[in-house]
Amino acid sequence: MIQSYVENDINIRLERIGAALASNGYDAILITSNANLYYTAGRVFSGYTYICADGSVTYFVKRPVGLAGDNVQYIRKPEQIADLLTQKPGKIAFELDSLTVNDFARLSKVFGESEIVDGSSILRKLRSVKTAYEIGKMKESGVKHDEAYRHIHRIYRDGMTDIELQIEVERLLRMEGSLGIFRIHGESMEIFMGNVLCGDNADSPSPYDFAMGGAGLDASLPVGGNGTPIKPGMTVMVDMCGNFNGYMTDMTRVFYVGKLDEMAKKAHETSIAIHHRLVKEGKPGVPASRLYDIAMEMTIEAGLEDFFMGHKQKAGYIGHGVGIEVNEAPVLAPRSRDILESGNVIALEPKYVIPHVGAVGIESTYVVTDNGLECITNYPEEIAELY
Amino acid sequence: MIQSYVENDINIRLERIGAALASNGYDAILITSNANLYYTAGRVFSGYTYICADGSVTYFVKRPVGLAGDNVQYIRKPEQIADLLTQKPGKIAFELDSLTVNDFARLSKVFGESEIVDGSSILRKLRSVKTAYEIGKMKESGVKHDEAYRHIHRIYRDGMTDIELQIEVERLLRMEGSLGIFRIHGESMEIFMGNVLCGDNADSPSPYDFAMGGAGLDASLPVGGNGTPIKPGMTVMVDMCGNFNGYMTDMTRVFYVGKLDEMAKKAHETSIAIHHRLVKEGKPGVPASRLYDIAMEMTIEAGLEDFFMGHKQKAGYIGHGVGIEVNEAPVLAPRSRDILESGNVIALEPKYVIPHVGAVGIESTYVVTDNGLECITNYPEEIAELY
Repeated sequence: MIQSYVENDINIRLERIGAALASNGYDAILITSNANLYYTAGRVFSGYTYICADGSVTYFVKRPVGLAGDNVQYIRKPEQIADLLTQKPGKIAFELDSLTVNDFARLSKVFGESEIVDGSSILRKLRSVKTAYEIGKMKESGVKHDEAYRHIHRIYRDGMTDIELQIEVERLLRMEGSLGIFRIHGESMEIFMGNVLCGDNADSPSPYDFAMGGAGLDASLPVGGNGTPIKPGMTVMVDMCGNFNGYMTDMTRVFYVGKLDEMAKKAHETSIAIHHRLVKEGKPGVPASRLYDIAMEMTIEAGLEDFFMGHKQKAGYIGHGVGIEVNEAPVLAPRSRDILESGNVIALEPKYVIPHVGAVGIESTYVVTDNGLECITNYPEEIAELY
Repeated sequence: MIQSYVENDINIRLERIGAALASNGYDAILITSNANLYYTAGRVFSGYTYICADGSVTYFVKRPVGLAGDNVQYIRKPEQIADLLTQKPGKIAFELDSLTVNDFARLSKVFGESEIVDGSSILRKLRSVKTAYEIGKMKESGVKHDEAYRHIHRIYRDGMTDIELQIEVERLLRMEGSLGIFRIHGESMEIFMGNVLCGDNADSPSPYDFAMGGAGLDASLPVGGNGTPIKPGMTVMVDMCGNFNGYMTDMTRVFYVGKLDEMAKKAHETSIAIHHRLVKEGKPGVPASRLYDIAMEMTIEAGLEDFFMGHKQKAGYIGHGVGIEVNEAPVLAPRSRDILESGNVIALEPKYVIPHVGAVGIESTYVVTDNGLECITNYPEEIAELY
């Protein structure tokens, strides 16, 4: 093992991966993405984790120099793997949802005699059920995320723009230990640390399937705050990522300036009510789609459907798994086939866009337990005045 | 065209892409990466840019809603492209160095009757020669990058750690308009906004082929500052990314605290001397490898080879193209086959790691012109005391 302090937990993960390979009839998997290198090694490195169906592992490392461990083999190029393997796998899984075509072509030659299959969904499924150690890491992130948000009142100043406020929140998070990066599965989604949205900008459609959009500062990154001055009557949604240790929490809280719009108030309260209801409903065995349906029912009952999960452009889910990446399984969407399991960690984000006012509704991160959802992002839920 | 203000420049790029396709015997290219969507559309969107060998273009857009333009076609899924094309391409290029295997499989079916070839190198080559408009954007970034660095003296406080200083530099850059994100070609390299390195941490190997490493704060992002307190006798390397408008500048400057180590002083001066020499040598037609060789010769002459481009782990280049991504062509490495061209924009970074002291040497961004290299990151080059 590369890192002893997580050795026990890595062994649990490797055993689960091995068992999943065996049950699919695969002999091995070659891990290539940073997210799954971290998951299988406890650290990011340049190289490959090679796991067999019996749970045995070899780390083929290019960089950094100096990693120690029984299972570490240094290589300069992937072609050396072929010589280092004592037994060639009959069927080997690759991460076909993240591996590029050119890298695939090169690695295919290394495993020229093997049948190559897609192992992406095995890892996605396993990673969606966190170990006790991983949940501990996420709770740590949640505490720091909360702590950073507690200073938002202090840093707000009259006349700030959304971006100016965001920059100060970024600094709060970094001072609290945020690593800054925000891992998103699928390389095409780009965002920087999160979003602060207010006023009309909250209703600007973005290129991404995010609950909220925002025009952004530049056409090269057209998402999030756009320099809108925060003015009385607006709501201010703070949706920043909490990644303090490789495991993320997702938490959105909302503030207002001056007078709180009645519709915004009602929508925010509806969001909180949805959370409180889903905390009870979200148990192992419950379909993820059921949580979406409940949120939609409560939204329709409140007459807020037009504003739900966006206005000009809508997102088609009310929550998602979170962990090493921010968009893990399960997906809480109408047609999701995911079933909640004990150890899932999910972010719920029933939100509303009120035209000309801004976005409202909270997002919190929860662990799925036998007793329902356990919240790990505990900043107060109510919409609060900034002054 | 999607965005009129860059329309003329986008047309130039599309013509060049069309001509390159034609000269390779390709009928069309389907652009899928955010970097090249931005290059070909002037904005990032979710979807595809489809360019024919005659330079004609169609933007197949999934999100955001509301983009206007003669060439914009809205789609829900890529399969619709097949019906919307009036003429099927015989040979179509994809971006095989960034497209994932699973996305490739899906898109291949859309172009079932076409031969699929790799268009990655065409785009890499074209993007390495910037248009006048692009150079203007990079100069803008350089001015802001410089302006942010001018406040470093003001924000430094005795007793800071590397990360505490970095957080304040991040804030300076963001207040100056930095978009924060740092586009790196190849998804496996991760870094957050740049690095501040001091003392022994500058010699910690990272997973990446970066000139300098650093252990980082966490095993999930093992690069950059690690919380080292900045102490007298150390150098402090500030290597932060400047991305203010989708086009990046790369600039490293170095400071010291207390007494400046003699070897560090000499190495820093050697780096500056290399820059001044390369500014004259770097002209169109010169092999990129020649610049590396000169830097190495000057380093050997100064007796600094052991410390050049890292100490425990070395990087194999002294510079790289920069633009929409931070690792573009040309590559300034011993075996590089790249030849400098007018309009290349390159970052030169001959750097040294002095054990126990820190890293020294500057990085600046230059435009390749007929008269040599024109510097666009003009913060003073000398090593300066922080107090």
